[in-house]
Amino acid sequence: MAKEMKNKEITDMNVDFAQWYTDVCRKAELIEYASVKGFTILRPYGYAIWENIQRIMDAEFKKTGHVNVAMPVLIPESLLKKEGELVNGFAPECAWVTEGGSEKLEERLAFRPTSETMFCDHWANVLQTYRQLPMLYNQWCSVIRWEKTTRPFLRSREFWWQEGHTIHETAEEALAETEQQLNLYADFCEKVLAMPVVKGRKTEKEKFAGAVATYSIESMMKDHKALQSATSHYFGDKFSRAYGVTYTGRDNTLKYPFQTSWGSTTRLIGAVIMTHGDNNGLVLPPAIAPIQVVVLPIAQHKPGVLEKSEEVVKAIEASGIRVKGDFSDNSAGWKFSEWEMKGVPLRIELGPRDIEANQCVVARRDNGEKVTVSLDELVAKLPELLQKVRDGLYEKALANLNEHTYAATEVSEVKSIMDNGGGFVKTMWCGNEECEVRMKELAGVSSRNIPFAQEHIADTCPVCGQKADKMVVWGIAY
Amino acid sequence: MAKEMKNKEITDMNVDFAQWYTDVCRKAELIEYASVKGFTILRPYGYAIWENIQRIMDAEFKKTGHVNVAMPVLIPESLLKKEGELVNGFAPECAWVTEGGSEKLEERLAFRPTSETMFCDHWANVLQTYRQLPMLYNQWCSVIRWEKTTRPFLRSREFWWQEGHTIHETAEEALAETEQQLNLYADFCEKVLAMPVVKGRKTEKEKFAGAVATYSIESMMKDHKALQSATSHYFGDKFSRAYGVTYTGRDNTLKYPFQTSWGSTTRLIGAVIMTHGDNNGLVLPPAIAPIQVVVLPIAQHKPGVLEKSEEVVKAIEASGIRVKGDFSDNSAGWKFSEWEMKGVPLRIELGPRDIEANQCVVARRDNGEKVTVSLDELVAKLPELLQKVRDGLYEKALANLNEHTYAATEVSEVKSIMDNGGGFVKTMWCGNEECEVRMKELAGVSSRNIPFAQEHIADTCPVCGQKADKMVVWGIAY
Repeated sequence: MAKEMKNKEITDMNVDFAQWYTDVCRKAELIEYASVKGFTILRPYGYAIWENIQRIMDAEFKKTGHVNVAMPVLIPESLLKKEGELVNGFAPECAWVTEGGSEKLEERLAFRPTSETMFCDHWANVLQTYRQLPMLYNQWCSVIRWEKTTRPFLRSREFWWQEGHTIHETAEEALAETEQQLNLYADFCEKVLAMPVVKGRKTEKEKFAGAVATYSIESMMKDHKALQSATSHYFGDKFSRAYGVTYTGRDNTLKYPFQTSWGSTTRLIGAVIMTHGDNNGLVLPPAIAPIQVVVLPIAQHKPGVLEKSEEVVKAIEASGIRVKGDFSDNSAGWKFSEWEMKGVPLRIELGPRDIEANQCVVARRDNGEKVTVSLDELVAKLPELLQKVRDGLYEKALANLNEHTYAATEVSEVKSIMDNGGGFVKTMWCGNEECEVRMKELAGVSSRNIPFAQEHIADTCPVCGQKADKMVVWGIAY
Repeated sequence: MAKEMKNKEITDMNVDFAQWYTDVCRKAELIEYASVKGFTILRPYGYAIWENIQRIMDAEFKKTGHVNVAMPVLIPESLLKKEGELVNGFAPECAWVTEGGSEKLEERLAFRPTSETMFCDHWANVLQTYRQLPMLYNQWCSVIRWEKTTRPFLRSREFWWQEGHTIHETAEEALAETEQQLNLYADFCEKVLAMPVVKGRKTEKEKFAGAVATYSIESMMKDHKALQSATSHYFGDKFSRAYGVTYTGRDNTLKYPFQTSWGSTTRLIGAVIMTHGDNNGLVLPPAIAPIQVVVLPIAQHKPGVLEKSEEVVKAIEASGIRVKGDFSDNSAGWKFSEWEMKGVPLRIELGPRDIEANQCVVARRDNGEKVTVSLDELVAKLPELLQKVRDGLYEKALANLNEHTYAATEVSEVKSIMDNGGGFVKTMWCGNEECEVRMKELAGVSSRNIPFAQEHIADTCPVCGQKADKMVVWGIAY
């Protein structure tokens, strides 16, 4: 009976979006809270989504010559401190190991908040000649940042991510890598997660601690807030110099390599939830759905229904699609709600009359549309239907982004937009950090990025009225 | 010039096996030391081996219904302490986080040394009914154990592993799981790593802290020492009771589930090195080799050689085999040594005369055997040749195991075997821990396990002379 009730407990997203989000995370069994404050558990269904993200993204990294490594999780405080800006950025949110075995350590060790320092330390050790460059490294691991307030996937003391770290002979190559990886993330979000993004460069105020330049992709959630979905950083030779990473160049002199890093995290799952989810729960893009198709027998006690359903499941499975048949004794209504809650892209309904007519009904999770498909053609048609779900999700998300992206020339206009449903607001900007801070004070928004796709909205900065030639996109960020 | 010398620096394994091992780990670029004492870095080539191990083993886990999850890395001391034996076993080697952000924590948090406690805590939270059982969970992660002396792959303060944790309705099911997973490990070692193992049960003295029973697989290294390659534990309902994990059973009463855990680590890479390696370096079983076939052009300055070599590489790549062509300007001699050092199973040599005759030479890394293969048949023949390398490695390793496994009826005999080259020694055992301890004192060996394949060697225990009906295998363990 408890199970019969379960689906009904989800909060309406229009009433309380934050509560709706937490409900989905827990009712779809993606996460559970751990008894350590601020930490979450990725449950099998949540982790399976992450596994799909990892598999697809990792293959993309490898196509462009990147290789995986594993760096130690603990960083000596002295090593972390070698680059001043980085340590200032991260030290306040580090978890510190101070005892090992039964002894007090002579030096505190930070649980990695990010691993630039470890990669540099390693490179200083192994890099000798330009022939070894570029080094294109990545690692999949978890990191800790001691956040005060936490939310599943979005802000958690421990989260899972990949961090790419590369070194190159020239600044141009490193900059090209930084852009290439940002584009890879953007393509991944659009094609795999069906989530449109705004690509751009972070302002000096918002960039990564220690970076020369930070690029980001920003996505719009259903509540019109912004979610920074991945970042890519260019470091110049700052870290190389701080950590003594050198090599003998083509001209036989000692040189410092140019460096990048780029990362994406389990936060992408939060982005997917808030981009595609609805009041029935999770809606998953097919490429990352642990179950792409669920087969539900209707009136399964009738002769032949279960057998035929199992046959259909096997045929779909053999085609390489991730499929599940729900042959439990729960009611059909319960099953419909359960698999909608879990966001399965396609639901196949198969009852006695369908079987008689050698057909089934396929329902799309993204828009509820139902089509009747001949059982002979089912397996061949599913990839196309899955693609339609992805396309449908992308179109809806793009419409949301477009409908809630505004251009403004006055600060009051920005404030009024944010007071009336919010969204992304494009304005010109003079480039002064003071105006950026002032915009936050006056309109409650922070700069998301300076989009690569620039537009000329006005001649002047809406804050100071001075000449402005950069367009910034503003929003309220997760 | 430095590179020309590199291969020559490896120590002879017959002169100093330990130094040979370390040399291989570093010269084959599997690992590097980190600046944190006792921690190592898995470099791209080493990590690629681990990725192959993970991919193959994970698929096996999933075939038997296991799913992956991610548990928090930090465990509150109070949670760790709930099961007395476990905490006694692990607390002395934990790394403790005592500061988070800029504040002292109220309670110390241990970096996971193993995660039984976290899984139990989670299950206590989410388990309600027998319908949810069994729960067959696994996670891939790193753990920390604050070892005093460390060696690459074998004993490191941080290491990478998988830890499976399952709960079941009945003791029988849990025991069957424990055995199933041990058999999975044994099959993996034999088929994938080409490494024969001895399956058996650990004595009470050697079992895992808190377990009712521990099963292990033991492998013999080239120096005749034993390496415990994986373990599988049965906990009964001890942890369930300690952590309050309960569910409503089929008879509507509250019950405690029965639990298992099982693990294997990056130590398997150490096992592979010491099982198959030789004085030319690493020798990799094809299934886990990052590069299965290396193509070396001979006299590559001659017209057509590079072009044909590239063509061959592409054809092999298209067949799904992991191949690399070394077209660098290093000498052929250097390349031979380099790829032997890295343990690539098959080397293809392709020179002008070969090309003229439409053939190439394929050399096996395991025994140096060379065969001439027509270029038309090459791609079709490679899988068979790779299988031959695996079989060749397995046969050699099995011969080593058989030749250095002895039966003994006297302690003095055990000592004499250990003094003369060592190996595995099978003796009867009365079952008393005192005799086990005494054997160590007198002959320098510890019990490896009580093999499932029992033999009757004598009627009495060689230590106390009392009646004995168990056969134990003894050895010196890594």
